[in-house]
Amino acid sequence: MPIPMPNLYPPFNIVRLSHVEFIVTDLARSRAFYADTLGLQVVAEEGERIYLRAMEERGHHCVILRQGPKAEISMLALKLYSEEDLDKAWDWLCEQGLPVEWVERPHQGRTLRTRDPSGMPLEFYFQMERLPPIHQKYALYHGVKPLRIDHFNCFSTDVDASVEFYNRIGFRVTEYTEDDESGRLWAAWMHRKGGVHDIAFTNGRGPRLHHTAFWVPTPLNIIDLLDLMSTTGYLANIERGPGRHGISNAFFLYILDPDGHRIEIYCSDYQTVDPDLEPIKWDLKDPQRQTLWGAPAPRSWFEHGSVFTGARVEDPLLKAQPIIAP
Amino acid sequence: MPIPMPNLYPPFNIVRLSHVEFIVTDLARSRAFYADTLGLQVVAEEGERIYLRAMEERGHHCVILRQGPKAEISMLALKLYSEEDLDKAWDWLCEQGLPVEWVERPHQGRTLRTRDPSGMPLEFYFQMERLPPIHQKYALYHGVKPLRIDHFNCFSTDVDASVEFYNRIGFRVTEYTEDDESGRLWAAWMHRKGGVHDIAFTNGRGPRLHHTAFWVPTPLNIIDLLDLMSTTGYLANIERGPGRHGISNAFFLYILDPDGHRIEIYCSDYQTVDPDLEPIKWDLKDPQRQTLWGAPAPRSWFEHGSVFTGARVEDPLLKAQPIIAP
Amino acid sequence: MPIPMPNLYPPFNIVRLSHVEFIVTDLARSRAFYADTLGLQVVAEEGERIYLRAMEERGHHCVILRQGPKAEISMLALKLYSEEDLDKAWDWLCEQGLPVEWVERPHQGRTLRTRDPSGMPLEFYFQMERLPPIHQKYALYHGVKPLRIDHFNCFSTDVDASVEFYNRIGFRVTEYTEDDESGRLWAAWMHRKGGVHDIAFTNGRGPRLHHTAFWVPTPLNIIDLLDLMSTTGYLANIERGPGRHGISNAFFLYILDPDGHRIEIYCSDYQTVDPDLEPIKWDLKDPQRQTLWGAPAPRSWFEHGSVFTGARVEDPLLKAQPIIAP
Amino acid sequence: MPIPMPNLYPPFNIVRLSHVEFIVTDLARSRAFYADTLGLQVVAEEGERIYLRAMEERGHHCVILRQGPKAEISMLALKLYSEEDLDKAWDWLCEQGLPVEWVERPHQGRTLRTRDPSGMPLEFYFQMERLPPIHQKYALYHGVKPLRIDHFNCFSTDVDASVEFYNRIGFRVTEYTEDDESGRLWAAWMHRKGGVHDIAFTNGRGPRLHHTAFWVPTPLNIIDLLDLMSTTGYLANIERGPGRHGISNAFFLYILDPDGHRIEIYCSDYQTVDPDLEPIKWDLKDPQRQTLWGAPAPRSWFEHGSVFTGARVEDPLLKAQPIIAP
Repeated sequence: MPIPMPNLYPPFNIVRLSHVEFIVTDLARSRAFYADTLGLQVVAEEGERIYLRAMEERGHHCVILRQGPKAEISMLALKLYSEEDLDKAWDWLCEQGLPVEWVERPHQGRTLRTRDPSGMPLEFYFQMERLPPIHQKYALYHGVKPLRIDHFNCFSTDVDASVEFYNRIGFRVTEYTEDDESGRLWAAWMHRKGGVHDIAFTNGRGPRLHHTAFWVPTPLNIIDLLDLMSTTGYLANIERGPGRHGISNAFFLYILDPDGHRIEIYCSDYQTVDPDLEPIKWDLKDPQRQTLWGAPAPRSWFEHGSVFTGARVEDPLLKAQPIIAP
Repeated sequence: MPIPMPNLYPPFNIVRLSHVEFIVTDLARSRAFYADTLGLQVVAEEGERIYLRAMEERGHHCVILRQGPKAEISMLALKLYSEEDLDKAWDWLCEQGLPVEWVERPHQGRTLRTRDPSGMPLEFYFQMERLPPIHQKYALYHGVKPLRIDHFNCFSTDVDASVEFYNRIGFRVTEYTEDDESGRLWAAWMHRKGGVHDIAFTNGRGPRLHHTAFWVPTPLNIIDLLDLMSTTGYLANIERGPGRHGISNAFFLYILDPDGHRIEIYCSDYQTVDPDLEPIKWDLKDPQRQTLWGAPAPRSWFEHGSVFTGARVEDPLLKAQPIIAP
Repeated sequence: MPIPMPNLYPPFNIVRLSHVEFIVTDLARSRAFYADTLGLQVVAEEGERIYLRAMEERGHHCVILRQGPKAEISMLALKLYSEEDLDKAWDWLCEQGLPVEWVERPHQGRTLRTRDPSGMPLEFYFQMERLPPIHQKYALYHGVKPLRIDHFNCFSTDVDASVEFYNRIGFRVTEYTEDDESGRLWAAWMHRKGGVHDIAFTNGRGPRLHHTAFWVPTPLNIIDLLDLMSTTGYLANIERGPGRHGISNAFFLYILDPDGHRIEIYCSDYQTVDPDLEPIKWDLKDPQRQTLWGAPAPRSWFEHGSVFTGARVEDPLLKAQPIIAP
Repeated sequence: MPIPMPNLYPPFNIVRLSHVEFIVTDLARSRAFYADTLGLQVVAEEGERIYLRAMEERGHHCVILRQGPKAEISMLALKLYSEEDLDKAWDWLCEQGLPVEWVERPHQGRTLRTRDPSGMPLEFYFQMERLPPIHQKYALYHGVKPLRIDHFNCFSTDVDASVEFYNRIGFRVTEYTEDDESGRLWAAWMHRKGGVHDIAFTNGRGPRLHHTAFWVPTPLNIIDLLDLMSTTGYLANIERGPGRHGISNAFFLYILDPDGHRIEIYCSDYQTVDPDLEPIKWDLKDPQRQTLWGAPAPRSWFEHGSVFTGARVEDPLLKAQPIIAP
């Protein structure tokens, strides 16, 4: 299937990805990872939840760590443009026969919970508690100096279907990988906020969360994090990288949190605000699409992911194999 | 006057700043500066015009150098979201009593020329010839490795009035400097594309163009450019920097082209897509607003600018003085 | 006077500069500056003394902070190649009629205290307490990430005489500034350890210590320090930079400690181990010798320095004026 | 065997490694690699030889490319401290029963050719044609911006014996890997010029040259080279990295030239001038010794090397196996 034409006038206006809730099995251990090692700022610790934000963010949180019996993702959240967009979203999702409910979320205004057609839990809101800027409080910067949440990447059993749905709500494809034999999409990168992606989909057992990415200033911050993790007991949490992606052209590192939730540290992709920006197509057999410098990703990178609360995981439609590190 | 509430539903949809035409008095000399030294890519050389683009851009040009009898700026151009937005812009500008005309511009579709209330020439278009990506043709990168045009900064005789007009067409203020005595704006930074600004206004004799900025990957590229310029005959073209701005938090360098058009090399500001992002206020007496590290800007930086073709330059309303380097 | 031929077989073997003792008037305040802000590691706190080392050093200290009634420098210390070199130094210094005494220094072996002909207090030793490496304990890195002490720079009333003396004990000139009218040296950079300098001399009221420099990994660490100092109450301690020196080609920043002792943060000069390396000559009237990018140094940089304990400060022989920032 | 005590008073004074002659099978192809891609400067092209230097070097050459029928290394060259040291070297080598001859080398003074006990061809000289500095000619910098030759790394069949020999001529061990079972050295890093090494030895079929390393300013230059090589036809020439070594703490990349001669791009090791610097011991079973971040080296890295002209290659004494990337 070809990728669809961008939908320039979607039914409601999504500004950007906003936050994720990681269910973790040891809150103190996860706090040490996200706050002490990565350098996210602890904004609030309330019972079983810790709220974190990155250095240039003024919304209350981009990550919620919640203590739970097993590692899961309870939802991915997206910020809308206005309160009216919340009502438009409610109406449109109802029309599509998708589940909708208003949920209470601390530090946020009205919040609409739904699931996408694959069963992935999404939450939309417009208003979140605003915090004073800290991006010039340089004494607070440490770890990898995370500036902002950048994107989600999800395993999908049917990337064509995922792209079709997210395209309808206004996400635009910037790059994609096609399996030439079947003509089906292997992966696609889709954005709202003007970077290469707010969300991406990769063929695999799904729905599952592949990773959550944070933007950092330069590749040197990623090297600093590698030096730090490899000398403070996190050596085994380094999964892949550092490297330059072919797709997105970003400099990257993949690491695993103590529960196995995958985090990408990411910088230097490109601006995509033009509505007529042509998507870039990559061949599934081209190893430079994974790493411009040629090194294929390890097997775990194609297989391991985080389960979403209440979503049944199924096998993908597409059986093609990517190139895997020997 | 307080800064106005953001206009979230403007009469037409501007995507971003797009390009500028520099009238230059020696085309070969300017080509050496922009292409050989800064590292912009020459896309076309057509008679008296040279078209340039930066490394991650796919539109045909972000800078036009045009041979002329004296150094001027013939227009600032902005990209709209669709062809329909061009017609909406025509109608709205007519309602405001502003001049409108369709002009022919090589490599572009329909182009609407107007002037803002201060007399500054603006051109709107949606469609521009698209070029294949070169952002991964690393052999082409050189000079300061410019990735994209980032913003314009203009002298305005009445910054309150400029902010009011650009706010009406959808630009949102991210940061501003106020003169506490008069309560008037000294300067304001306004965006469409999700960075700190597409356009900024500073109190001064106007309308004039203060500078055009290009985004580069890291501060080290700016250091590379300083090393290069200072050993290839461009020492006197270095005006201010390098430094970190208080406003925008960006790392910067200001240089002058051979005709005195000012260029800023710029990186690492922050994302501003949230419609409810609170503007940051700075005091005119705070030298850290200019340079976070304390060094005030030189006098030339407050006085020198490029004239717009056909626009009469007048004195500013506000007579307050910024802090100037001794 | 021309600079002398290098003395390839000096009377005793100096390995490198080693450490400095800063007399400070508020030990806690200086600790906050050197340890918390610059990032030197506190090795020991013993009564009125704090011992610090940089990240890649294995000797016990490169800086001693000592509480005292007024800000001074009690000595500059140099490491010799062997215990035998200490005895050779004693003999040679006696022959020159210079004062010699064995002094007790905690954490060091035999230590020989003398004064150079200008009265500057020097201490020589071979053996210092050795510490386990910490250069791969990345959790300890912070501030500007200082790796090692790099050099001393001293005001001298007679740079020709200083060069003549240090040349005799094996220091080799790498770069120098000459006053063309008088034919006298304005400044000279001299090394033992294979960089541009272990010690430099600049014309001025002397003997006084102009600055002590620390080596850091990259220019980005210097930018990090500027961001940190300018947002943690040290804005007024930033004196000059950042910039690229013409002389030495190093990237630099000058800051003042709470007592006014000047510190240079320095990186990326070049290797000078060849005994036949030709010194590079600079003209006193060339502003690029100070900063390759053209900005002259401020007046304070030519006038302010730290007094040595027990050394009388006198006016320089050479009255020529360098270029000073307006 | 334990590593020997440093020999602080060697029979002749070696300043540093100096240069290497690569026999290459297609001179134009090698020129494109070393000059156009890596960024070494072509100093002279004389018949079948091309002479290259790095940006901060003032000696005439650090690399000679020589056209030949098969890829080999004709010699490794070392710079002595004086002409007298050449005569002392001649005498000492004769005493050891090693071959000596005076050879004519263009652009050099008297040159002494010998072989170490393993058969590796070495050449000693003091005087080489000196060239004007180019380290501030920033327009010449390109590719990876190589600043200087840094070290040789050689396969040795008996690392204990190699260390013993080079220790006698003044090289000092900075780090080493021991095989705990046999008590034999697996690898050792030895220096003269004050960095981690001028030459290193690794257990393997030998004598062969494992690699030649060049020093670059920062890790970002290495990332630039990876981007360049992977988009200009050199993808298959990337062998290992980028990464941080455990041993030496340097940031590294290994690439292969068109004939398979291995080049390391290297930066940020540490200063080792102290004669009493304690060597650091690593365990052969510790993967962090290869890469601090945990990734083992590929098999080719342990097996592939360049043969020396006229030296018979033999199997190593030590049969232990390092950790190899799966």
